[in-house]
Amino acid sequence: MVSEAQLRTAMQRYLDALNAADVDGIISLFAQGGTVEDPVGTGVYDAREGLTRLVGGLPAGANFTLDTPIRASHSNGAAMAFTVEMIHEGVPTRIRSLDVMRFDEDGLITEMKAYYGPSDITTA
Amino acid sequence: MVSEAQLRTAMQRYLDALNAADVDGIISLFAQGGTVEDPVGTGVYDAREGLTRLVGGLPAGANFTLDTPIRASHSNGAAMAFTVEMIHEGVPTRIRSLDVMRFDEDGLITEMKAYYGPSDITTA
Repeated sequence: MVSEAQLRTAMQRYLDALNAADVDGIISLFAQGGTVEDPVGTGVYDAREGLTRLVGGLPAGANFTLDTPIRASHSNGAAMAFTVEMIHEGVPTRIRSLDVMRFDEDGLITEMKAYYGPSDITTA
Repeated sequence: MVSEAQLRTAMQRYLDALNAADVDGIISLFAQGGTVEDPVGTGVYDAREGLTRLVGGLPAGANFTLDTPIRASHSNGAAMAFTVEMIHEGVPTRIRSLDVMRFDEDGLITEMKAYYGPSDITTA
């Protein structure tokens, strides 16, 4: 089993790579065949395809911050609630998201599901 | 599909019922055949059995508070990060948990998964 510390480190690296818009860094955290569903209810995609589109769609300067510490589990799963702040088409926009991840025995992400709905996106 | 507002209301009722140690109220939020895994990695149980044990194991005065607003999704799923504070065997104890739920078309919970590991439990 992957340690709780490893799970947390991988989740934090994912956020850090999003803040750096480092798509290669993000994809390197995923196992071959890993999937992403971001947000839940909009379809499951291959991680490389889904994350390339996700990161490519982020405005420059999009900022990801944890709302509360990352949660581990008693298995290879972990979850974290975070907020994304960005200027989207000139409008300050905030997305409150929450990612749930599954990991393989090497600590690579096999599945990422992001929970947020239209009402979790607000503009200032 | 269940509305985002319905998802949030059900999640909040779940927390409120936990604060009231109202096991019947909690079970009434679940669909027949609903399951709970609390925490993830320790086995999946029938909701009635699992929640009766969960609530029965809570010390009097255990207090559940959201860490950040409940997240909805684009489907019948939602998630929330919260903290439980309690006096456990005389020791002030905090559990940082995060629940992910699936709902049926009537807005009843079909699946609850709680993410926290041993390191998410701290004592003062």
